[in-house]
Amino acid sequence: MPSKVTFILGGAASGKSAYAEKLCVNSRKDRIYLATSQVFDTEMRAKIDRHLVQRGPGWTTYEAPMELASVLDSLNETQICLLDCATMWLSNQMLAEADLNTAQDVLLAALERCTADVVVVSNEVGHGIVPDNALARQFREAQGRLNIALAQIAPTVIQVTAGLPRALKGQL
Amino acid sequence: MPSKVTFILGGAASGKSAYAEKLCVNSRKDRIYLATSQVFDTEMRAKIDRHLVQRGPGWTTYEAPMELASVLDSLNETQICLLDCATMWLSNQMLAEADLNTAQDVLLAALERCTADVVVVSNEVGHGIVPDNALARQFREAQGRLNIALAQIAPTVIQVTAGLPRALKGQL
Amino acid sequence: MPSKVTFILGGAASGKSAYAEKLCVNSRKDRIYLATSQVFDTEMRAKIDRHLVQRGPGWTTYEAPMELASVLDSLNETQICLLDCATMWLSNQMLAEADLNTAQDVLLAALERCTADVVVVSNEVGHGIVPDNALARQFREAQGRLNIALAQIAPTVIQVTAGLPRALKGQL
Repeated sequence: MPSKVTFILGGAASGKSAYAEKLCVNSRKDRIYLATSQVFDTEMRAKIDRHLVQRGPGWTTYEAPMELASVLDSLNETQICLLDCATMWLSNQMLAEADLNTAQDVLLAALERCTADVVVVSNEVGHGIVPDNALARQFREAQGRLNIALAQIAPTVIQVTAGLPRALKGQL
Repeated sequence: MPSKVTFILGGAASGKSAYAEKLCVNSRKDRIYLATSQVFDTEMRAKIDRHLVQRGPGWTTYEAPMELASVLDSLNETQICLLDCATMWLSNQMLAEADLNTAQDVLLAALERCTADVVVVSNEVGHGIVPDNALARQFREAQGRLNIALAQIAPTVIQVTAGLPRALKGQL
Repeated sequence: MPSKVTFILGGAASGKSAYAEKLCVNSRKDRIYLATSQVFDTEMRAKIDRHLVQRGPGWTTYEAPMELASVLDSLNETQICLLDCATMWLSNQMLAEADLNTAQDVLLAALERCTADVVVVSNEVGHGIVPDNALARQFREAQGRLNIALAQIAPTVIQVTAGLPRALKGQL
C-alpha cells in the first residue's frame, strides 16, 4: 500500500508546523518526528527547543539532516511521519554542495516507496525581492522546484497563513 | 458588547489598506484612524501623505506608534477603528526594545475589551529568503506570532492579493 | 472586440510560467511569446534557455524588454500572447530610470487596445522583510501598484503556488 503524503506549505512562523503536528496527533497513528535541523548556534537551539515543547510527548524522533531515505524505508503503515522541514533539508544539501536535482529525486522516490503516512512541511521563500546573493537566488529556485514536485506527488496540499489552513489540492 | 475585530493581511503594496478603508467607510460608523507610523524620513512622510489622500476626509486620527490600549479603551460602539498597521506597531516596539510577548498580550487584551469595531491591517513578511540579519529574523518570527494571535481572536480574516480580497476565516 | 487579459501571479519558481504556457497552448490560437528579459549575465542566459526548452516549439517570439505597446498593437484576434513577465519589464523600466507611472499607463492602455488574447505573468515580491535598499523598496511598491492595476483590467486572475492554480477573480 503506498503511503499518503500530505504537503504543508507556508511562510516562516505561519503556524505550519503546529498545524502539521495536529494532523499527526489526530491520525491516532504512531508518531515519528524526522528532524532535519543541524544545530549551528544558540538561535537554532532555542528554535528546536520551542518546537519540542510545542510538540509535546509521544513522538519518536530521528535526526536526519541529509539522508532521509533510510529512515523513511524503515517505517511501516502503523506510523505517521512528520518531516519538518523540506526547506531545512534542502538548505543542508546546498551547504554540503550536493547535487540538488539528484537529492530531490532520491527524496521523492523514498516518499513514494514509504508505507507510513508522511506529512511534509515546507517554506514558501519566493515572494520577496530578488536576493542580491547568487546562492540565495539558487536556493529559492531549488525550493520552488522541490515544492512543485512535492505538490505533484501529494494527494493533499495545504497552505497555512496566520495559523489558518487552506487546501490547495484535496480536502482539509 | 464585545468589539468585532476584522483582520486584513497582505504583502507590501497589495491594496490591503485601501480595502480596509473601504470596509470602514461601508460600515457607516464614525471612523477612527489609529496611525502607527513614526516619521523618520521623507520616504515615510511621502507614504503617510499618499495614504491620507487615499483615505479622504471623514476620519478622526490618533497618532499612537506604541501605546494603543488607551485609545482603544476610549472608543465606543458607534465607532469603527482602522489600526494601520500592526507591522509598523510591532516594528516600533522592537526599535524601542520592548518585550514583544508582553506588548502583544497588552494589545490583544485591549482589542478584546474594545467596544468599537476594529479593522486591523498587518503584513505578511515571512515568504522571502531567510534574512541575513538576526533582528530581521527575530522580527519575522514575532510578526508571524502576532498574525496567528490576531487571526485567532478575529471572527473575520481577509487576505488581500493584488487588490483582491479572499476570506481565510469568516465571510467577505 | 476587446482582448481578454488573463493575469497570472505567483512567487519566484512557483510554476507560474509553465501554467501560463499551458493556458496558451490549450487556447489553440497562434502563440506569441513576448520576451522581456535582457541578458546581462550567464545566470539570466541559462534561465532563458530553460524556459525556451520548457515552452517547446510553436511560438513566435518578440524580444521587447521596454516598449511593449507596438508589439501588442500589431497582434490580432487569431493570436494569444504570453507576456512573461511584467516584473522583468518593470525592472527594465526602473533600470532605465523611466517614469514608472507613465510606463504603467502606456502598458495598460496597450493591453486594453490589443485585439489578441494576452496572458500576463507577474511576481509577488512584497511578502518578505522590508528591504534595506531604497530602490528595492521603491520596486516592490511599483510592482504592487502594477499588480493591482493588472488585476483590475483582467477578467481572470490566477495565483499559482507550488504549481497549483487558484482563481482570485473569474474562473480557472
